[in-house]
Amino acid sequence: MVTATSPSHPPFHTVDLIRSKCDGHELSDAQIDWLISAYTADEIADEQMSAFAMAVRFCGMSRRELNRWTRAMINSGERLDFSGLSKPTVDKHSTGGVGDKITLPLVPLVAACGVAVPQLSGRGLGHTGGTLDKLESIPGWRATLTNEEMMRQLADVGAVICAPGPGLVPADKKLYALRDVTGTVESIPLIASSIMSKKIAEGASALVLDVKVGSGAFMKTLDSARELAQTMVDLGRAEGVPTVALLTDMSAPLGLTAGNALEVTESVEVLAGGGPPDVVELTVALAHEMITAVGLDDHDPAALLASGTAMDVWRAMIKAQGGDPDAKLPVARETDVITADRDGVLQFLDALAVGDAAWRLGAGRERKEHAVQPGAGVQLHAKPGSRVQAGQPLITLHTDTPERFGPARQALVGAYSIEDADAPGRQLIFDRIG
Amino acid sequence: MVTATSPSHPPFHTVDLIRSKCDGHELSDAQIDWLISAYTADEIADEQMSAFAMAVRFCGMSRRELNRWTRAMINSGERLDFSGLSKPTVDKHSTGGVGDKITLPLVPLVAACGVAVPQLSGRGLGHTGGTLDKLESIPGWRATLTNEEMMRQLADVGAVICAPGPGLVPADKKLYALRDVTGTVESIPLIASSIMSKKIAEGASALVLDVKVGSGAFMKTLDSARELAQTMVDLGRAEGVPTVALLTDMSAPLGLTAGNALEVTESVEVLAGGGPPDVVELTVALAHEMITAVGLDDHDPAALLASGTAMDVWRAMIKAQGGDPDAKLPVARETDVITADRDGVLQFLDALAVGDAAWRLGAGRERKEHAVQPGAGVQLHAKPGSRVQAGQPLITLHTDTPERFGPARQALVGAYSIEDADAPGRQLIFDRIG
Repeated sequence: MVTATSPSHPPFHTVDLIRSKCDGHELSDAQIDWLISAYTADEIADEQMSAFAMAVRFCGMSRRELNRWTRAMINSGERLDFSGLSKPTVDKHSTGGVGDKITLPLVPLVAACGVAVPQLSGRGLGHTGGTLDKLESIPGWRATLTNEEMMRQLADVGAVICAPGPGLVPADKKLYALRDVTGTVESIPLIASSIMSKKIAEGASALVLDVKVGSGAFMKTLDSARELAQTMVDLGRAEGVPTVALLTDMSAPLGLTAGNALEVTESVEVLAGGGPPDVVELTVALAHEMITAVGLDDHDPAALLASGTAMDVWRAMIKAQGGDPDAKLPVARETDVITADRDGVLQFLDALAVGDAAWRLGAGRERKEHAVQPGAGVQLHAKPGSRVQAGQPLITLHTDTPERFGPARQALVGAYSIEDADAPGRQLIFDRIG
Repeated sequence: MVTATSPSHPPFHTVDLIRSKCDGHELSDAQIDWLISAYTADEIADEQMSAFAMAVRFCGMSRRELNRWTRAMINSGERLDFSGLSKPTVDKHSTGGVGDKITLPLVPLVAACGVAVPQLSGRGLGHTGGTLDKLESIPGWRATLTNEEMMRQLADVGAVICAPGPGLVPADKKLYALRDVTGTVESIPLIASSIMSKKIAEGASALVLDVKVGSGAFMKTLDSARELAQTMVDLGRAEGVPTVALLTDMSAPLGLTAGNALEVTESVEVLAGGGPPDVVELTVALAHEMITAVGLDDHDPAALLASGTAMDVWRAMIKAQGGDPDAKLPVARETDVITADRDGVLQFLDALAVGDAAWRLGAGRERKEHAVQPGAGVQLHAKPGSRVQAGQPLITLHTDTPERFGPARQALVGAYSIEDADAPGRQLIFDRIG
C-alpha cells in the first residue's frame, strides 16, 4: 500500500510550495511538516530548498508558520530529557560576537548557583570564534560526549559544554550548511528557528539569549536585533520554554582578547575574580537572568566569582572532559605589536575588524574542515575610552605563521582612532526582552 | 600555472554574488560572465544557482546586467551562421499558448516569400503544446537534424523546423531545467534572456516575437506581456538582431483544435487556403512582419496561402525530414462530446482550461521523459461570439484512454458560458513593439 507520505506519491509538490511562498501565501501546517521531514529524508533536492529559503528571505513567515516550522525542525530528531536530574536546567545562547568568551566563565558560575547547565556549543566559522575551538586549546579536553556521559557530568559537576550529538535537529544541520553557501543566512525567521529548534531540542527548562548588536554581530542595528530577540522569545514560549533575551553591545570586542587560547586565559582571569570589567559585567548579568529563570535568584553571582566557587566548578568541568586545568596553554610562535601613533583617547575599536584580523591570523577557519591555530589571535592593550600615549602598544597580533601579519594589519586599517576629545561611554546592555 | 578562471581559484565566491543581488547591487560584467561559464562547467552548484535565480525573481536585473547575462548565455555554446546562404534568414518565437499551431503554416509561408526560416522548436510541457510534438504526429517525420542537414534543407527548401542541437546555449538547458523545479520560472529577465539567447544563437538575421497575453499564456496581463516584449526587443537590438514583437490574445484558444495531430490537420487546412479565421489572420500578420524585417515586403502572404504556394513548401519541408505529407494522421480511439445546455451566444471559452483539458486527455506530458498521445486533444465546434443551440456539440474530447474523459470534463467546468446577449468582439493583435 502506498501511504500519503510515500516518496513515490508525495502529498505536495515542492515547486508548488516554493511558488506559494513567493506569491505571499502562507503554508499550511501539513505543508510545513512535510517540507521539513522530506528535506531531512533527502526527498527534496537542495536546489529546491535553497530556492524556498531565498523566498523566505524575501517574503518572511507568519508567526503561525514560524512556530510550526520550528516545531517540525525539533521533531526531525531526538529531544534530550533532563527531567531525571534533581536540579533545574537552564541554557544560554549567544548570537555570536568578537571576543565573546562569556560561555566559559558563565556556565561554571551558574552551576555554582545550583543549576545544571547543559551547554551545547559550536565551532567558529568566519570572524566570530567558536566555544569548542576555544576549549580545545586546553590540552586533553574533548568536545564530544555521549548523551549518557553528558547526563552523568551534569549530575556530578552540574556543568557541561560539548558538541551536539548527530541526532539533534538533523533538519537544521542540512539547512544550515545549505544556507551558508546560498546567501540565505540573512533571514530572521530562518535564524530564529535554527537557534531555537536546537536550544529547545537540547531540553533545558529555561533559556537566556544574548542577542548581539553592532559591527561585530550578525545584527547590525538595534531594530533588527530586537526583532530577532522578540521572535526567539516568542518561539520559546510557544514551545513552553520560558525564554528571555538581553540585547548587548558588539560594536567593540568583549574583553581584551580574540583568539582561542587567549580567550581561555582571559576567562580564567574572570573566574579568579579579575578580568576585564565588560566581560565580568555581562557574565554576571547573564548568570542573574539564568538563575532567576529557574527561581534560584537568592544567589549572588558576583560573590561566587570573587570567592573562587565558580573556579572550582570550572576545574571540575574541564577535568571531567579530559582536560588539564593547570596545563600551559598554547602560545603563538610570533607576535607583532601595533603602537599608538599619537597621544589621545581611543575613540572606537571596530569589532568586525578585530574579528577579521584574528581570523586572518589563524584563530578562525575558512572552511569547516580546516584546523585553527590555538595560539593565534588579537590582544588589545586599550579599549575605547582609554587614554593612550604615542608609541605605546595598542594591539598585539599573535600567529604561528608570520606571513599573516600583513593581512591582519590590513584588516585593522581605519578600525580605530585616537583623538583629543573624551570618547562617549559604552552601554553594554541595551535592553531586556521577555 | 593557476589561471584566473581555474576552478581551484575562482575569481569570485558564488555566495558573494548571491548576497550582492539580494542586497540590490548590480553585478559586474566579469561577475556575470563567470557565473554563467562556471555554472555551465558544473563549477557552481545547482542549489547556489537556484538561490541566485530566486534573488533575480525578487530583485530583477538592470538593462546592462541583462544584456551581459544574455550575451554570456549565448557564449556558453555555439552560434549558428547562415551567412553562407544566398537568402536572408528570419526566425519567429511564440511565448506559447493553447492551440498555437501558427509555426506550422507560417514557416513554409515565409519561405515561399524567398526568406530562409531556420525554426528551432521545443516540446510541450504543461498546458501549452510543443511544435515538435505536433509534427511528430506525421508518420516518418524526424525532429533531429545535424547542422549540415539543416543548412542543406534551408538552401534547398528554405524552411526547416527542428530540435536545437546540444551545442546551442548549454547554459540555458541547465538553467531552464533548474528553474522549472525551483519556482523561478516567473521572472521577466530570466524568461527574456532564456528565449533571446537561444534565438540569437540560432543565427537568424532578424526576429519576430509573438508574445501571448491572457489566461492560456504565461503572461496574464497586457502590462506584463508588454514588459516582456519590450525587454526582448531591446535584447535583440543590443545584440544587433532587428527584433519586433506582436502582443496577441490568448484568452481563448487559437483556432478550433488543441492537440498534436488535430493541430496539424488544421494547419494543413490553412495552407490549403481555408482554416479558422483567427489562425489565418495571425499567420498572415506574423508573415508580414517577418518579410518586412528583411526588406521583402513586396510579397502578399495572404495570396501565397490562397494560391497553394505555401502548401508546396510545406510538403517539401515535411518530406525533407522523412515525413509523408499525404499520410493519414493518427486518430484517437475514443471521443466524448460536450453539448450546449441552452440556446444563446458563447460568451467566452477559457484558453487555460482548454489547454488543461487537452493535456489531461494525453496531448501533453507531465514529465519530459513521458510520451504524448498524437491523436489526443480538444476539438471546438464554436468560438466565443458564436450562436449555439441547446443540444448542439460544443466540444469534442479525443483520447486513446477513456478514463481521461472525466478529468478533462472537470477541467472545463466553468470554462465557458452561454448567454442571450451578444459577446464582445475579439481583438486578436493588441499591439506591436519595435
